[in-house]
Amino acid sequence: MGAVKSKRVPRAVREQQMLDAAVLTFARRGYRAASMDEIAELAGVSKPLVYLYLNSKEDLFNTVIRRESAALVAAVTSAVEPGAAADRQLCSGLKGFFAHTAEHPYGWAVLHQQARTHGEPFAREVAALRAEIVAFVTELLGAAAKEAGCVGELVEREVAGLAHALVGAAESLAEWANVRTDEGASGDPEHPSAKDTAATMMNFAWMGLNQLMGGERWVPGGLVDHESRSCARR
Amino acid sequence: MGAVKSKRVPRAVREQQMLDAAVLTFARRGYRAASMDEIAELAGVSKPLVYLYLNSKEDLFNTVIRRESAALVAAVTSAVEPGAAADRQLCSGLKGFFAHTAEHPYGWAVLHQQARTHGEPFAREVAALRAEIVAFVTELLGAAAKEAGCVGELVEREVAGLAHALVGAAESLAEWANVRTDEGASGDPEHPSAKDTAATMMNFAWMGLNQLMGGERWVPGGLVDHESRSCARR
Repeated sequence: MGAVKSKRVPRAVREQQMLDAAVLTFARRGYRAASMDEIAELAGVSKPLVYLYLNSKEDLFNTVIRRESAALVAAVTSAVEPGAAADRQLCSGLKGFFAHTAEHPYGWAVLHQQARTHGEPFAREVAALRAEIVAFVTELLGAAAKEAGCVGELVEREVAGLAHALVGAAESLAEWANVRTDEGASGDPEHPSAKDTAATMMNFAWMGLNQLMGGERWVPGGLVDHESRSCARR
Repeated sequence: MGAVKSKRVPRAVREQQMLDAAVLTFARRGYRAASMDEIAELAGVSKPLVYLYLNSKEDLFNTVIRRESAALVAAVTSAVEPGAAADRQLCSGLKGFFAHTAEHPYGWAVLHQQARTHGEPFAREVAALRAEIVAFVTELLGAAAKEAGCVGELVEREVAGLAHALVGAAESLAEWANVRTDEGASGDPEHPSAKDTAATMMNFAWMGLNQLMGGERWVPGGLVDHESRSCARR
């Protein structure tokens, strides 16, 4: 292992550097075109060291998916203020989701595009992540329904459907926001920030299109007209 | 071509039979595991005839994706009543979408799962379909915003974001509804019909979760309490 230049860097740190390089490379080139040479070069290590630590391109991709999944779940769940009203919890969870996907566009591209596009074992990993987030949102919506006293009204089945709708909407919106960033709109003052995106999503989900088009906006705790501000200042 | 049993069946009809068999096989087995033998057998033709008409497994998959995409776009656009109010148009478009995906669960599985999971050329085809549907929804939402007189308020950027959110929500909900069907809930009176799914989606999108949890439901033209009924009778 003569190619290992700086032996003093602990293995755990080196591995994270390799994973960072891998996320960037997979997101930019796609899984198939990504080369272990490029990943090693970007991480500043030799290719044999990448193989020694992370085994194969397939294993490396799997490790990347697991790391990025865990980071996303942690960002969403830790953003939620425990004990707050359900709408506040949802809004802060969404803000956490959009902030994380905006700060980690390559990680999100790997999860949302690459992992689903390159065969079933990878797609299954991402499906498991998605199921975890859907379960979390279902729980929040169930609590919100209970708070609103409509347990009999908004039946369990509908809550599950709504949770799927909400997660699908958020995924699609995050993808759209990041594509706009890729197109170079990032420095553009017109480019939506994570807060803006969360506000759009929350307005859509909580207020509905009807109210939105009437100029109303969501604020924690009640209806307001268009002069007021939502969870993210607009 | 001695294996061709019934020469009197026109080529166009035979091809559609082969494509029907392919949709079923790709959805059930996945693209990789699907065999041309099984597709030929299911279509009641010889394997050489499938190759003669549709060239290769890859080309067959591509033809399936194009056919199913065109059918889905046609179902959505033809469901929309031209000239109706924007919320009615959206609701009927959603009903068309959920009815089509429920009636063609295998076609939807090919588009939503298989085509995205097996490499970039297929994923690109589905991305083009999605872009077409997003453009259609953006147009509808733009018209709805104009009707509501909030052109300056609900800026073009937000309309595009909302269209992405709406399409993502509908895709996710259709997948969930079909998974439930696969699980054998189809004969179950609790199983949501296309109309129920469209109503859940429309209530979510148009009324927002807040109103929904307050027991309100969307009806064309205005607010109603929970005793009233939405676009699809519940």
